Amino acid sequence: MDTILNLGLNDQTVRGLAASSGDERFAWDSYRRFVQMYASVVLGIDHARFEDALEKAKEDRGVSQDVDLSATDLRDLIGEFFGIVEAERGAPFPQDVDEQLASAIAAVFESWESDRAKVYRRLNGIPGEWGTAVNVQAMVFGNLGETSATGVAFTRNPATGDKAYYGEWLVNAQGEDVVAGIRTPQYLTLAARTAAGAKLPSMEEALPAVFTELARLFELLELHYQDMQDIEFTVERGKLYILQTRSGKRTAKAALKIAVDMVEEGLIAEEAAIRRIDPASLDQLLHPTLDPDAPRTLLGSGLPASPGAASGAVVFDADTAAVRAELGENVILVRQETSPDDIHGMHVARGILTAKGGMTSHAAVVARGMGRPCVSGASSLSIDYQARSAEIGGVHIAEGDLITIDGSTGEIFQGALPTVMPELDREFATVMAWADRHRRMNVRTNAETPADCEVARQFGAEGIGLCRTEHMFFDGERINFMRQMILAANVAERLVALDRLLPEQRSDFARIFEIMQGLPVTVRLLDPPLHEFLPHSESEFTELSAAVGIGVDQLRRRAEELAESNPMLGHRGCRLGVVYPEIYEMQARAIFEAACAVSRETGQPVVPEIMIPLVGTARELDMLKRIVIGVSEAVFAEQGLTVEFTVGTMIELPRAALVADEIAKVGEFFSFGTNDLTQTTLGISRDDAGRFLGSYIDKGIFATDPFVSIDVEGVGKLIAMAARLGREARPDIKLGICGEHGGDPASIAFCDRVGLDYVSASPFRVPIARLAAAQSALAAT
Amino acid sequence: MDTILNLGLNDQTVRGLAASSGDERFAWDSYRRFVQMYASVVLGIDHARFEDALEKAKEDRGVSQDVDLSATDLRDLIGEFFGIVEAERGAPFPQDVDEQLASAIAAVFESWESDRAKVYRRLNGIPGEWGTAVNVQAMVFGNLGETSATGVAFTRNPATGDKAYYGEWLVNAQGEDVVAGIRTPQYLTLAARTAAGAKLPSMEEALPAVFTELARLFELLELHYQDMQDIEFTVERGKLYILQTRSGKRTAKAALKIAVDMVEEGLIAEEAAIRRIDPASLDQLLHPTLDPDAPRTLLGSGLPASPGAASGAVVFDADTAAVRAELGENVILVRQETSPDDIHGMHVARGILTAKGGMTSHAAVVARGMGRPCVSGASSLSIDYQARSAEIGGVHIAEGDLITIDGSTGEIFQGALPTVMPELDREFATVMAWADRHRRMNVRTNAETPADCEVARQFGAEGIGLCRTEHMFFDGERINFMRQMILAANVAERLVALDRLLPEQRSDFARIFEIMQGLPVTVRLLDPPLHEFLPHSESEFTELSAAVGIGVDQLRRRAEELAESNPMLGHRGCRLGVVYPEIYEMQARAIFEAACAVSRETGQPVVPEIMIPLVGTARELDMLKRIVIGVSEAVFAEQGLTVEFTVGTMIELPRAALVADEIAKVGEFFSFGTNDLTQTTLGISRDDAGRFLGSYIDKGIFATDPFVSIDVEGVGKLIAMAARLGREARPDIKLGICGEHGGDPASIAFCDRVGLDYVSASPFRVPIARLAAAQSALAAT
Repeated sequence: MDTILNLGLNDQTVRGLAASSGDERFAWDSYRRFVQMYASVVLGIDHARFEDALEKAKEDRGVSQDVDLSATDLRDLIGEFFGIVEAERGAPFPQDVDEQLASAIAAVFESWESDRAKVYRRLNGIPGEWGTAVNVQAMVFGNLGETSATGVAFTRNPATGDKAYYGEWLVNAQGEDVVAGIRTPQYLTLAARTAAGAKLPSMEEALPAVFTELARLFELLELHYQDMQDIEFTVERGKLYILQTRSGKRTAKAALKIAVDMVEEGLIAEEAAIRRIDPASLDQLLHPTLDPDAPRTLLGSGLPASPGAASGAVVFDADTAAVRAELGENVILVRQETSPDDIHGMHVARGILTAKGGMTSHAAVVARGMGRPCVSGASSLSIDYQARSAEIGGVHIAEGDLITIDGSTGEIFQGALPTVMPELDREFATVMAWADRHRRMNVRTNAETPADCEVARQFGAEGIGLCRTEHMFFDGERINFMRQMILAANVAERLVALDRLLPEQRSDFARIFEIMQGLPVTVRLLDPPLHEFLPHSESEFTELSAAVGIGVDQLRRRAEELAESNPMLGHRGCRLGVVYPEIYEMQARAIFEAACAVSRETGQPVVPEIMIPLVGTARELDMLKRIVIGVSEAVFAEQGLTVEFTVGTMIELPRAALVADEIAKVGEFFSFGTNDLTQTTLGISRDDAGRFLGSYIDKGIFATDPFVSIDVEGVGKLIAMAARLGREARPDIKLGICGEHGGDPASIAFCDRVGLDYVSASPFRVPIARLAAAQSALAAT
Repeated sequence: MDTILNLGLNDQTVRGLAASSGDERFAWDSYRRFVQMYASVVLGIDHARFEDALEKAKEDRGVSQDVDLSATDLRDLIGEFFGIVEAERGAPFPQDVDEQLASAIAAVFESWESDRAKVYRRLNGIPGEWGTAVNVQAMVFGNLGETSATGVAFTRNPATGDKAYYGEWLVNAQGEDVVAGIRTPQYLTLAARTAAGAKLPSMEEALPAVFTELARLFELLELHYQDMQDIEFTVERGKLYILQTRSGKRTAKAALKIAVDMVEEGLIAEEAAIRRIDPASLDQLLHPTLDPDAPRTLLGSGLPASPGAASGAVVFDADTAAVRAELGENVILVRQETSPDDIHGMHVARGILTAKGGMTSHAAVVARGMGRPCVSGASSLSIDYQARSAEIGGVHIAEGDLITIDGSTGEIFQGALPTVMPELDREFATVMAWADRHRRMNVRTNAETPADCEVARQFGAEGIGLCRTEHMFFDGERINFMRQMILAANVAERLVALDRLLPEQRSDFARIFEIMQGLPVTVRLLDPPLHEFLPHSESEFTELSAAVGIGVDQLRRRAEELAESNPMLGHRGCRLGVVYPEIYEMQARAIFEAACAVSRETGQPVVPEIMIPLVGTARELDMLKRIVIGVSEAVFAEQGLTVEFTVGTMIELPRAALVADEIAKVGEFFSFGTNDLTQTTLGISRDDAGRFLGSYIDKGIFATDPFVSIDVEGVGKLIAMAARLGREARPDIKLGICGEHGGDPASIAFCDRVGLDYVSASPFRVPIARLAAAQSALAAT
């Protein structure tokens, strides 16, 4: 909603204003302000034109402040403004006050469709169909002399959450003067002025009676709205007018403190405090952020793909990243875009910067999963891999040069800027504890490295909802064993390579089971198409050829054979297990051997849940479940030890949702893989959506990005159907979600509504999910 | 079901048989036959080993016929057989008659899982889960002297359908002698023997009493089963035994004649006649077939991807195909696999042969649509594009060499074999007329060339269910205008290229509307991703660069920009219309201008149905429908003429099916695009499925190929849901199917059950669809 202060000034009415106020200068100043704002906002003329004319008028008259211009000066200036308007517009400045108002109202409505508004909406998930509203108020004047004033205030500190009035004001001024920065605004309270050592008096000192009245209204409004208020006010000849009040925007830190304080003040209930905090904002608290006081040189910007700030030396490939990181250097991996081949480089990098790809590109998704800051789709970045250099916004960057990225804003800076680590203070812990008391759903994490598992457990994860095993195959020497496995000419050769991978997998699982002791760990068996593991570059082929003793040509032919037209819909997921059961056998053995070992060592229960991906039929699951059970029996007999486990499946294909009753007869749990389920249900490849998804959101075809927030009407219908069918066939089936949506508050609310047992989010989103789950539970009561 | 004739012979019982029959030679001959068959079928020893031993035994004794071997000769031979068995098996030939029977029964059950059986099932769409049965009968002997005999017979001619007994018999023989080809079998009837000029007596002459009895049983069995019977019989010392009777396999021609005859004979009703004919078999009648009498040299074989036979000179690319065809030459296009770029070459080719791809590859689908014979996935074919030559089964084939392909069998022959054109006789017309009387659903065709439209109309198509407009953009100069359109830097440039395409599209539509006068024509607006239209080869880029005046590097960059990771799920279908509305505007204009012109010329109604592809939300359809309606209003005003039309959509994404009620509020018809709906619902790319789909069918995960026959449980559930939701929202909505499944009898039955109004099939499958629709309607009554 926008508010229009209705002035209705023209060559006639300005004289009436002069007469009624008894202050001619004031009347012409008001007219000047009105013409200037109307011309730029409603008529769309560059506001710099008017600022320039105003500056020139002050220069000509040898004065520095607007207030030093006389009524005559201002009338002359308005004449110049009219000239500018007529030249730009081909018509004079409108004199009909009704037309002025109607056009102003129209301008507000049109602003809803501006590019800026669209981008804002897209970034904040606001549906375009909501539209906007217009509020028209009579004008009051803060520029009516020394007893008039204007200001903006918060009832508490929106940066820290401290309970102290926070704001700025100016005497003899209108609202735009406070924000324009020409005159330095004054502090509102004596305490603030004193603390800042400012000279100009605070409002508390200058207009004590009005300030007292203002403070009374602050308390009244906070009490009424039960929230910190952001207030605009004007004082006209000693009389206080509140122009607007709304719940104030605040940092996550402030949001937590205000919520906890208000509960302790008895102002709001615990439930209200939980409801009030934007879960997504917690992100700010959980990642290192740029030191706000550090000087900086902005090179360019991209999409804020994974929050947090990171500095380091630029490297252009994953191997170099690994080498330099090994030597203890902080590196930023800079790529056109990333692929699964880059995983090891992404792991060791402090941050990731890509020229292509959106908020849901490979780089973005993996970086968020790893908790690495990432800026993606930086269009001003161009990379010359051959020359091992890049340009960002015209600045040349050689490999090894230091840069800083801020994944929360998408900005890229020159050099290494200092960052500050988050402190998770008392209020964070308090709110999380409240949230845990109120939520129904469990919160797990998507993690596969020991580091991620530890972070997630600290953040309160109640298990692992998705442990992707494929990432484990990229590290170090393993990738060569993996490639040998893929290139094997027959089962016997494949088994040799798998035997080499077995101890690696087993030790991976053992470390994860140790960290997650007592909590369930859902391990997804191999999912991506095999060609993702094969080399891409010439040098990699040569290297592999030497390692496996197969000619480069033959390797390349095999890689071409494995290439697919639509890999997303190709030979992957459980289809690998069906065609190459020995791969899943090896993985199942690694899981059970690790589980036995950890269970014996620690005496704590180890709870593996083995998840078969990309199932579309009950038969696939049945066939593969039998294999897993066969391996378990063999391992338990060898180890003389039994570990409880379950076998379940991802629901990530429409068909799986449609026949969920059949699948539930076999599977002991469902985990909704909403990334792929969204891709298949909507027929949209996430990697290719960039070309039209923006257009689709702008045109209101999708209210929000369906890869960020579950498409409730379509994908949601399938999930609800599958949950219902699944429970009908197996009443105690465990239902969860492990797609990216598991960390999105709106999607978490949906999951709660359809009765899922848990959501699983990347480690850094676990607190967000805990809070969102609590909010959803409260919404249902 | 298999029948085991229980013999139970061993070294003891053979003597008993000799005693009871009074014929020692007969007893040892029976034992020899039994050991030979048991060793090869049950013990799995190569049957050639025994044949060789038998041949050698006859040579050693200087005789040419098995019957000339004495009892002693046979006993010695059995001794040799035992030696072979023991050497191969490491154990003697089993003497326990119960073990013999049990092993024989097990062998039948095991045969169900043999590779041959699996391939057969896959080709014939028989679910693996059906399993088989075993029937055990006491043995009777046709080898008990001159009053004993054996034979196989059909109650009518299974090749032509003529009402005349048809069969072969041998005196003093067992069943395997008839098929083994060592002795020439004799004709059953005097008429057949006379007609063939054969010397050996017919059974009618040699065993007249038995023949009379046999003929009586033929009539009885036909009357009982009301169908032509395939009968195996044995005569043991003058006594007739019927070993087996079943409905006989027959050619499509015979099936039609027998059905019509039987109705005319009053044996069966019209409905039964319709039910009895396998719709898929009609394919044989509708395509040219190889002259069965022509000598041939088989080079290799692939999959029978599109039926019919074709001969011509081998060409390795579409352009060469076009050039040589222009000169009047018959060509066979031979490619690794085909792409939309090859369409013009496929059009002019007599047949298509590919090394890669399955029954549902691009080549197969397009060829079936065009009615071109196609053999796909011929693994023994390797092509050297550079050398412009190929090898098929080791034989070198240069460009221009003649080959023949049989798309009904998948065979590839050297040279140009003569073919015979189908005659559609009285019986075909009769059965089609009966089918039309009984079916509920309409049958349309998928066609976009005038030739295809004409064929389809002749075959009884009641409209076009899918006219793909993209194929129209590949011909001749148009592809360059299309490419200019794609490469346009802005809307203005794009409009220039579109203006050039407009008259071409208009004349295409005009010709189709003329041919289809009075019938509905569903035109699908542009669907495939734009990069499908861009060049692939170096020379094409150079050519295009010259034509459009843009550097090769820039063209290649643009092509790379347009490349997608998963084009199937990319920027295609209505997403093109949303981002580039001017493309759909041009197409709508072309349709309406053509409709006005044809309507004015012919005075006949023209019934365009404009179909928006790949819709997932009602908003997309609404937005694009408005564009189409806007264009229609403009054109009708310009032309001073109005043409009735409707705007509807494909339902080919799971989301579209899920929100079909919303979509039906906007769309006036749904056409189920089951190809893409199957791909997205199952998450299987048709182009990539080759690597695992065979395995999936063999292992019983899918009963039949879901791209051939609708996956009723999964995809079918979505279709049923969408049909129900669509009708709820718009009771008079028209529902049809235009995927490949529209020509598959099982899928047609499904469409009938869920109440679709029509199916649409490729021109050559229209008669099949008419018959299948009638069968389905009869099944429902």
